[in-house]
Amino acid sequence: MHLSPATLSPNDRYKLLIGAIVPRPIAWVSTRSPDGRDNLAPFSFFAGVGSDPMTLLFCPATRPDGTEKDSLRNAKPVGEGGTGEFVVNVVPHELVRRMAACAEELAYGESEFALAGLTPAACEIVRVARVLESPVSFECRTMQVIRTNPTSTGQSQPGSGNIVLGEVVHVHVRDELINERMHIDAAKLDAIGRMGGSEYCTTRERFGEPRGRAALS
Amino acid sequence: MHLSPATLSPNDRYKLLIGAIVPRPIAWVSTRSPDGRDNLAPFSFFAGVGSDPMTLLFCPATRPDGTEKDSLRNAKPVGEGGTGEFVVNVVPHELVRRMAACAEELAYGESEFALAGLTPAACEIVRVARVLESPVSFECRTMQVIRTNPTSTGQSQPGSGNIVLGEVVHVHVRDELINERMHIDAAKLDAIGRMGGSEYCTTRERFGEPRGRAALS
Repeated sequence: MHLSPATLSPNDRYKLLIGAIVPRPIAWVSTRSPDGRDNLAPFSFFAGVGSDPMTLLFCPATRPDGTEKDSLRNAKPVGEGGTGEFVVNVVPHELVRRMAACAEELAYGESEFALAGLTPAACEIVRVARVLESPVSFECRTMQVIRTNPTSTGQSQPGSGNIVLGEVVHVHVRDELINERMHIDAAKLDAIGRMGGSEYCTTRERFGEPRGRAALS
Repeated sequence: MHLSPATLSPNDRYKLLIGAIVPRPIAWVSTRSPDGRDNLAPFSFFAGVGSDPMTLLFCPATRPDGTEKDSLRNAKPVGEGGTGEFVVNVVPHELVRRMAACAEELAYGESEFALAGLTPAACEIVRVARVLESPVSFECRTMQVIRTNPTSTGQSQPGSGNIVLGEVVHVHVRDELINERMHIDAAKLDAIGRMGGSEYCTTRERFGEPRGRAALS
Protein backbone atom coordinates (compact mmCIF):
# COMPACT_ATOMS: atom_id res chain seq x y z
CA MET A 1 0.00 0.00 0.00
CA HIS A 2 1.23 3.47 -0.92
CA LEU A 3 0.24 6.35 1.31
CA SER A 4 0.85 10.01 0.70
CA PRO A 5 0.81 12.10 3.90
CA ALA A 6 -0.58 15.05 1.92
CA THR A 7 -3.83 13.14 1.36
CA LEU A 8 -4.17 11.83 4.94
CA SER A 9 -5.65 13.54 7.98
CA PRO A 10 -3.24 14.46 10.80
CA ASN A 11 -4.94 11.78 12.90
CA ASP A 12 -4.25 9.09 10.29
CA ARG A 13 -0.63 10.24 10.00
CA TYR A 14 -0.36 9.97 13.77
CA LYS A 15 -1.73 6.41 13.68
CA LEU A 16 0.90 5.44 11.10
CA LEU A 17 3.70 6.86 13.26
CA ILE A 18 2.55 5.16 16.48
CA GLY A 19 1.73 1.88 14.73
CA ALA A 20 5.04 1.53 12.87
CA ILE A 21 7.54 3.17 15.26
CA VAL A 22 7.40 0.49 17.95
CA PRO A 23 8.29 -0.35 20.68
CA ARG A 24 8.72 3.18 22.07
CA PRO A 25 10.38 3.96 25.41
CA ILE A 26 8.33 6.12 27.76
CA ALA A 27 9.54 9.42 29.20
CA TRP A 28 7.50 10.17 32.29
CA VAL A 29 8.32 13.88 32.30
CA SER A 30 8.08 15.95 35.46
CA THR A 31 8.25 19.73 35.30
CA ARG A 32 7.44 22.65 37.56
CA SER A 33 5.63 25.80 36.49
CA PRO A 34 7.44 29.13 36.99
CA ASP A 35 5.08 29.73 39.96
CA GLY A 36 5.99 26.39 41.56
CA ARG A 37 3.31 23.88 40.65
CA ASP A 38 4.29 20.30 39.74
CA ASN A 39 3.34 18.55 36.52
CA LEU A 40 3.87 14.95 35.38
CA ALA A 41 2.98 13.49 31.97
CA PRO A 42 4.05 10.55 29.78
CA PHE A 43 5.58 10.94 26.30
CA SER A 44 6.65 8.16 23.94
CA PHE A 45 8.14 10.33 21.20
CA PHE A 46 11.33 10.16 23.23
CA ALA A 47 14.96 9.29 22.45
CA GLY A 48 18.54 9.49 23.60
CA VAL A 49 20.64 11.82 21.46
CA GLY A 50 24.32 11.65 22.39
CA SER A 51 26.79 11.15 25.21
CA ASP A 52 29.11 14.17 24.83
CA PRO A 53 27.30 16.27 25.97
CA MET A 54 24.87 13.76 27.50
CA THR A 55 21.60 14.62 25.80
CA LEU A 56 18.08 13.31 25.30
CA LEU A 57 14.86 14.65 23.83
CA PHE A 58 11.10 14.31 24.00
CA CYS A 59 8.49 15.65 21.60
CA PRO A 60 5.31 17.26 22.97
CA ALA A 61 2.98 18.21 20.12
CA THR A 62 1.18 21.53 20.17
CA ARG A 63 -2.53 20.94 20.79
CA PRO A 64 -4.98 21.25 17.87
CA ASP A 65 -6.24 24.51 19.43
CA GLY A 66 -2.69 25.93 19.31
CA THR A 67 -2.02 25.84 23.05
CA GLU A 68 1.06 24.21 24.52
CA LYS A 69 0.97 21.12 26.74
CA ASP A 70 1.96 21.89 30.33
CA SER A 71 5.26 19.94 29.98
CA LEU A 72 6.38 22.13 27.08
CA ARG A 73 5.10 25.30 28.71
CA ASN A 74 7.16 24.54 31.82
CA ALA A 75 10.29 23.02 30.23
CA LYS A 76 10.93 25.63 27.57
CA PRO A 77 13.82 28.02 28.20
CA VAL A 78 13.47 30.88 30.68
CA GLY A 79 13.71 33.35 27.80
CA GLU A 80 10.58 31.78 26.29
CA GLY A 81 8.60 31.87 29.56
CA GLY A 82 9.43 28.43 31.02
CA THR A 83 11.86 27.22 33.65
CA GLY A 84 14.38 25.56 31.29
CA GLU A 85 14.31 22.36 33.36
CA PHE A 86 12.67 18.93 33.31
CA VAL A 87 13.14 15.40 34.64
CA VAL A 88 12.67 12.16 32.71
CA ASN A 89 11.53 9.33 34.98
CA VAL A 90 11.64 5.71 33.75
CA VAL A 91 8.48 3.54 33.93
CA PRO A 92 8.76 -0.08 35.15
CA HIS A 93 5.88 -2.46 34.59
CA GLU A 94 4.67 -2.13 38.19
CA LEU A 95 3.98 1.61 37.67
CA VAL A 96 2.12 1.33 34.36
CA ARG A 97 -1.30 2.26 35.76
CA ARG A 98 -0.05 5.24 37.69
CA MET A 99 1.84 6.42 34.60
CA ALA A 100 -1.23 5.97 32.38
CA ALA A 101 -3.30 7.94 34.88
CA CYS A 102 -1.00 10.92 34.33
CA ALA A 103 -2.28 11.23 30.77
CA GLU A 104 -5.40 12.77 32.36
CA GLU A 105 -5.86 16.37 31.24
CA LEU A 106 -5.88 18.32 34.50
CA ALA A 107 -6.17 22.09 34.71
CA TYR A 108 -2.80 23.84 34.43
CA GLY A 109 -1.17 23.70 37.84
CA GLU A 110 -3.11 20.71 39.19
CA SER A 111 -0.69 17.96 40.16
CA GLU A 112 -0.70 14.51 38.59
CA PHE A 113 1.47 13.36 41.51
CA ALA A 114 -1.55 13.73 43.79
CA LEU A 115 -3.95 12.17 41.28
CA ALA A 116 -1.80 9.04 40.88
CA GLY A 117 -0.59 8.74 44.49
CA LEU A 118 3.06 9.38 43.66
CA THR A 119 5.71 11.03 45.81
CA PRO A 120 7.42 14.18 44.53
CA ALA A 121 11.09 14.04 45.61
CA ALA A 122 13.62 16.86 45.47
CA CYS A 123 16.27 16.80 42.74
CA GLU A 124 19.97 17.53 43.15
CA ILE A 125 20.44 20.17 40.45
CA VAL A 126 17.13 21.20 38.93
CA ARG A 127 14.16 22.73 40.76
CA VAL A 128 11.75 20.05 39.57
CA ALA A 129 10.28 17.13 41.52
CA ARG A 130 11.29 13.65 40.40
CA VAL A 131 9.07 10.59 40.91
CA LEU A 132 10.42 8.88 44.04
CA GLU A 133 8.83 5.56 43.00
CA SER A 134 10.68 5.53 39.64
CA PRO A 135 13.93 3.50 39.56
CA VAL A 136 15.81 5.89 37.21
CA SER A 137 15.47 9.66 36.82
CA PHE A 138 17.42 11.95 34.50
CA GLU A 139 17.62 15.58 35.63
CA CYS A 140 17.79 17.78 32.52
CA ARG A 141 18.42 21.37 31.53
CA THR A 142 16.63 22.39 28.35
CA MET A 143 19.15 23.30 25.66
CA GLN A 144 16.68 24.21 22.94
CA VAL A 145 13.10 23.76 21.76
CA ILE A 146 12.91 23.03 18.03
CA ARG A 147 9.53 23.77 16.45
CA THR A 148 8.73 21.81 13.28
CA ASN A 149 6.28 24.40 12.03
CA PRO A 150 6.87 27.77 13.66
CA THR A 151 4.73 30.85 13.26
CA SER A 152 6.32 34.19 12.41
CA THR A 153 6.44 34.95 16.15
CA GLY A 154 8.32 31.73 16.99
CA GLN A 155 5.36 29.85 18.45
CA SER A 156 4.16 26.55 16.95
CA GLN A 157 1.29 26.05 14.52
CA PRO A 158 -1.66 24.06 15.94
CA GLY A 159 -1.02 20.30 15.83
CA SER A 160 2.66 20.60 14.95
CA GLY A 161 5.48 18.78 16.69
CA ASN A 162 8.16 20.22 18.95
CA ILE A 163 11.46 18.77 20.11
CA VAL A 164 12.59 19.55 23.64
CA LEU A 165 16.35 18.88 23.70
CA GLY A 166 17.86 18.52 27.16
CA GLU A 167 21.30 18.06 28.64
CA VAL A 168 21.38 15.47 31.41
CA VAL A 169 22.95 17.11 34.46
CA HIS A 170 22.32 14.43 37.09
CA VAL A 171 21.19 10.79 37.11
CA HIS A 172 19.43 8.87 39.89
CA VAL A 173 19.56 5.05 39.61
CA ARG A 174 18.30 2.66 42.25
CA ASP A 175 21.39 0.83 43.60
CA GLU A 176 20.26 -2.73 42.92
CA LEU A 177 19.74 -2.02 39.19
CA ILE A 178 23.26 -1.02 38.24
CA ASN A 179 26.80 -2.35 38.57
CA GLU A 180 30.13 -0.49 38.75
CA ARG A 181 30.53 -0.71 34.95
CA MET A 182 27.32 1.35 34.54
CA HIS A 183 25.42 -1.64 33.19
CA ILE A 184 21.69 -1.45 34.00
CA ASP A 185 19.99 -4.81 34.60
CA ALA A 186 17.10 -5.04 32.12
CA ALA A 187 15.30 -7.79 34.04
CA LYS A 188 15.33 -5.81 37.28
CA LEU A 189 14.37 -2.56 35.53
CA ASP A 190 11.42 -4.33 33.85
CA ALA A 191 10.63 -1.34 31.66
CA ILE A 192 7.55 -1.22 29.46
CA GLY A 193 7.28 0.11 25.92
CA ARG A 194 4.51 1.90 24.09
CA MET A 195 2.82 0.36 21.06
CA GLY A 196 0.00 1.68 18.83
CA GLY A 197 -3.49 2.46 20.13
CA SER A 198 -3.70 1.97 23.88
CA GLU A 199 -1.27 -0.96 23.90
CA TYR A 200 2.01 -1.46 25.74
CA CYS A 201 4.62 -4.20 25.62
CA THR A 202 6.93 -5.71 28.20
CA THR A 203 10.71 -6.08 27.76
CA ARG A 204 10.71 -9.58 29.21
CA GLU A 205 11.49 -11.54 26.04
CA ARG A 206 15.06 -10.54 25.23
CA PHE A 207 17.79 -12.01 23.06
CA GLY A 208 21.32 -11.13 22.00
CA GLU A 209 22.70 -10.73 18.49
CA PRO A 210 26.28 -10.01 17.42
CA ARG A 211 26.74 -6.89 15.33
CA GLY A 212 28.32 -6.58 11.89
CA ARG A 213 29.26 -9.49 9.61
CA ALA A 214 29.24 -11.84 12.62
CA ALA A 215 25.42 -11.58 12.71
CA LEU A 216 25.23 -13.48 9.41
CA SER A 217 27.31 -16.47 10.42
CA MET B 1 23.00 5.87 43.41
CA HIS B 2 23.75 9.44 42.34
CA LEU B 3 25.70 9.97 39.12
CA SER B 4 27.04 13.22 37.78
CA PRO B 5 27.63 13.12 34.01
CA ALA B 6 30.53 15.57 34.45
CA THR B 7 32.50 12.88 36.31
CA LEU B 8 31.65 10.01 33.93
CA SER B 9 33.34 9.04 30.66
CA PRO B 10 31.31 9.48 27.47
CA ASN B 11 31.19 5.68 27.21
CA ASP B 12 29.66 5.36 30.68
CA ARG B 13 27.14 8.09 29.88
CA TYR B 14 26.25 6.17 26.72
CA LYS B 15 25.72 2.99 28.73
CA LEU B 16 23.33 4.82 31.06
CA LEU B 17 21.31 6.14 28.12
CA ILE B 18 21.02 2.78 26.35
CA GLY B 19 20.39 0.86 29.58
CA ALA B 20 17.62 3.12 30.88
CA ILE B 21 15.92 4.33 27.69
CA VAL B 22 14.36 1.02 26.71
CA PRO B 23 12.82 -0.49 24.65
CA ARG B 24 13.97 1.58 21.65
CA PRO B 25 12.44 1.33 18.16
CA ILE B 26 14.95 0.73 15.35
CA ALA B 27 15.30 3.00 12.34
CA TRP B 28 17.02 1.05 9.60
CA VAL B 29 18.09 4.12 7.66
CA SER B 30 18.87 3.95 3.96
CA THR B 31 20.57 6.85 2.22
CA ARG B 32 22.37 7.47 -1.05
CA SER B 33 25.60 9.40 -1.41
CA PRO B 34 25.58 12.44 -3.71
CA ASP B 35 27.50 10.29 -6.26
CA GLY B 36 24.87 7.53 -6.14
CA ARG B 37 26.09 4.84 -3.75
CA ASP B 38 23.65 3.18 -1.32
CA ASN B 39 24.08 3.01 2.43
CA LEU B 40 22.03 1.24 5.10
CA ALA B 41 22.57 1.41 8.87
CA PRO B 42 20.51 0.88 12.05
CA PHE B 43 19.87 3.61 14.64
CA SER B 44 17.92 3.28 17.89
CA PHE B 45 18.06 6.92 18.97
CA PHE B 46 14.95 7.34 16.88
CA ALA B 47 11.50 8.86 17.46
CA GLY B 48 8.35 10.17 15.88
CA VAL B 49 7.94 13.93 16.30
CA GLY B 50 4.55 15.12 15.07
CA SER B 51 1.80 14.58 12.55
CA ASP B 52 1.30 18.07 11.08
CA PRO B 53 3.71 18.15 9.31
CA MET B 54 4.39 14.41 9.57
CA THR B 55 7.86 14.28 11.05
CA LEU B 56 10.34 11.88 12.62
CA LEU B 57 13.99 12.02 13.66
CA PHE B 58 17.05 9.86 14.21
CA CYS B 59 20.28 10.74 15.98
CA PRO B 60 23.61 9.70 14.46
CA ALA B 61 26.50 10.65 16.76
CA THR B 62 29.64 12.16 15.31
CA ARG B 63 32.48 9.61 15.58
CA PRO B 64 35.15 10.10 18.28
CA ASP B 65 37.59 11.09 15.49
CA GLY B 66 35.23 13.88 14.43
CA THR B 67 34.08 12.31 11.16
CA GLU B 68 30.42 11.89 10.28
CA LYS B 69 28.70 8.54 9.90
CA ASP B 70 27.73 7.82 6.28
CA SER B 71 24.00 8.18 7.10
CA LEU B 72 24.49 11.73 8.38
CA ARG B 73 26.90 12.60 5.58
CA ASN B 74 24.32 11.53 3.00
CA ALA B 75 21.10 12.72 4.69
CA LYS B 76 22.18 16.24 5.61
CA PRO B 77 20.75 19.05 3.49
CA VAL B 78 22.09 19.73 -0.01
CA GLY B 79 23.48 23.05 1.22
CA GLU B 80 25.63 21.14 3.72
CA GLY B 81 26.94 18.64 1.14
CA GLY B 82 24.36 15.83 1.47
CA THR B 83 21.29 14.85 -0.53
CA GLY B 84 18.66 16.01 1.95
CA GLU B 85 16.88 12.65 1.77
CA PHE B 86 16.64 9.40 3.72
CA VAL B 87 14.34 6.42 4.23
CA VAL B 88 13.44 4.79 7.55
CA ASN B 89 12.74 1.06 7.14
CA VAL B 90 11.07 -0.90 9.96
CA VAL B 91 12.73 -4.09 11.30
CA PRO B 92 10.56 -7.16 11.99
CA HIS B 93 11.95 -10.03 14.04
CA GLU B 94 12.69 -12.11 10.95
CA LEU B 95 15.16 -9.48 9.66
CA VAL B 96 17.09 -8.98 12.90
CA ARG B 97 20.28 -10.65 11.70
CA ARG B 98 20.39 -8.83 8.41
CA MET B 99 19.76 -5.55 10.24
CA ALA B 100 22.50 -6.26 12.80
CA ALA B 101 24.91 -7.08 9.95
CA CYS B 102 24.42 -3.53 8.65
CA ALA B 103 26.19 -2.18 11.75
CA GLU B 104 29.41 -3.35 10.05
CA GLU B 105 31.70 -0.41 9.29
CA LEU B 106 32.20 -0.61 5.54
CA ALA B 107 34.26 1.86 3.55
CA TYR B 108 32.22 4.93 2.46
CA GLY B 109 30.28 3.92 -0.63
CA GLU B 110 30.33 0.16 -0.06
CA SER B 111 26.76 -1.15 0.13
CA GLU B 112 25.33 -2.87 3.19
CA PHE B 113 22.48 -4.08 0.94
CA ALA B 114 24.97 -6.41 -0.79
CA LEU B 115 26.62 -7.47 2.47
CA ALA B 116 23.30 -8.49 4.04
CA GLY B 117 21.61 -9.90 0.94
CA LEU B 118 18.89 -7.26 0.82
CA THR B 119 17.10 -5.84 -2.21
CA PRO B 120 17.32 -2.09 -2.89
CA ALA B 121 13.95 -0.94 -4.26
CA ALA B 122 13.13 2.39 -5.86
CA CYS B 123 11.20 4.97 -3.85
CA GLU B 124 8.29 7.11 -5.07
CA ILE B 125 9.53 10.55 -4.11
CA VAL B 126 13.12 10.45 -2.84
CA ARG B 127 16.14 9.21 -4.77
CA VAL B 128 17.12 6.70 -2.10
CA ALA B 129 16.71 2.91 -2.14
CA ARG B 130 14.30 1.43 0.40
CA VAL B 131 14.66 -2.12 1.76
CA LEU B 132 12.24 -4.23 -0.28
CA GLU B 133 12.15 -6.90 2.47
CA SER B 134 10.99 -4.38 5.12
CA PRO B 135 7.21 -4.24 5.73
CA VAL B 136 7.08 -0.45 6.32
CA SER B 137 9.25 2.32 4.85
CA PHE B 138 8.98 6.06 5.46
CA GLU B 139 10.42 8.23 2.68
CA CYS B 140 11.77 11.43 4.24
CA ARG B 141 13.11 14.83 3.25
CA THR B 142 15.58 16.26 5.73
CA MET B 143 14.21 19.46 7.26
CA GLN B 144 17.16 20.27 9.48
CA VAL B 145 20.20 18.77 11.21
CA ILE B 146 20.52 19.98 14.81
CA ARG B 147 24.02 19.64 16.27
CA THR B 148 24.20 19.40 20.07
CA ASN B 149 27.77 20.70 20.23
CA PRO B 150 28.65 22.62 17.08
CA THR B 151 32.06 24.00 16.19
CA SER B 152 32.41 27.61 15.06
CA THR B 153 32.15 26.38 11.46
CA GLY B 154 28.85 24.56 12.07
CA GLN B 155 30.30 21.04 12.13
CA SER B 156 29.96 18.81 15.22
CA GLN B 157 32.52 18.25 17.96
CA PRO B 158 33.91 14.70 18.12
CA GLY B 159 31.56 12.33 19.96
CA SER B 160 28.64 14.75 20.06
CA GLY B 161 25.07 13.94 19.07
CA ASN B 162 23.15 15.18 16.05
CA ILE B 163 19.43 15.16 15.32
CA VAL B 164 18.33 14.54 11.74
CA LEU B 165 14.76 15.84 11.50
CA GLY B 166 12.80 14.62 8.48
CA GLU B 167 9.40 15.25 6.97
CA VAL B 168 7.69 12.04 5.85
CA VAL B 169 6.72 12.50 2.19
CA HIS B 170 5.59 8.95 1.34
CA VAL B 171 4.81 5.76 3.25
CA HIS B 172 5.02 2.14 2.05
CA VAL B 173 3.09 -0.41 4.14
CA ARG B 174 2.65 -4.07 3.22
CA ASP B 175 -1.08 -4.54 2.53
CA GLU B 176 -1.74 -7.33 5.02
CA LEU B 177 -0.43 -5.24 7.95
CA ILE B 178 -2.88 -2.34 7.81
CA ASN B 179 -6.60 -1.74 7.68
CA GLU B 180 -8.59 1.12 6.16
CA ARG B 181 -8.53 3.02 9.47
CA MET B 182 -4.71 3.15 9.26
CA HIS B 183 -4.34 0.73 12.16
CA ILE B 184 -1.13 -1.33 11.86
CA ASP B 185 -1.37 -4.89 13.23
CA ALA B 186 1.36 -5.23 15.87
CA ALA B 187 1.33 -9.04 15.82
CA LYS B 188 1.81 -9.19 12.06
CA LEU B 189 4.45 -6.43 12.11
CA ASP B 190 6.37 -8.34 14.82
CA ALA B 191 8.82 -5.46 15.35
CA ILE B 192 11.83 -5.79 17.60
CA GLY B 193 13.20 -3.23 20.03
CA ARG B 194 16.72 -2.38 21.12
CA MET B 195 17.83 -2.81 24.72
CA GLY B 196 21.22 -2.13 26.37
CA GLY B 197 24.46 -3.88 25.36
CA SER B 198 23.86 -6.20 22.39
CA GLU B 199 20.35 -7.15 23.48
CA TYR B 200 17.02 -6.83 21.69
CA CYS B 201 13.44 -7.49 22.78
CA THR B 202 10.37 -8.73 20.98
CA THR B 203 6.99 -6.94 21.02
CA ARG B 204 5.09 -10.20 21.50
CA GLU B 205 3.91 -9.69 25.08
CA ARG B 206 1.41 -6.84 24.79
CA PHE B 207 -1.35 -5.51 27.00
CA GLY B 208 -3.84 -2.65 27.00
CA GLU B 209 -4.36 0.05 29.63
CA PRO B 210 -6.95 2.82 29.69
CA ARG B 211 -5.53 6.35 29.91
CA GLY B 212 -6.27 9.01 32.50
CA ARG B 213 -8.18 8.47 35.76
CA ALA B 214 -9.72 5.28 34.34
CA ALA B 215 -6.31 3.56 34.66
CA LEU B 216 -6.62 3.71 38.45
CA SER B 217 -10.00 2.04 38.75
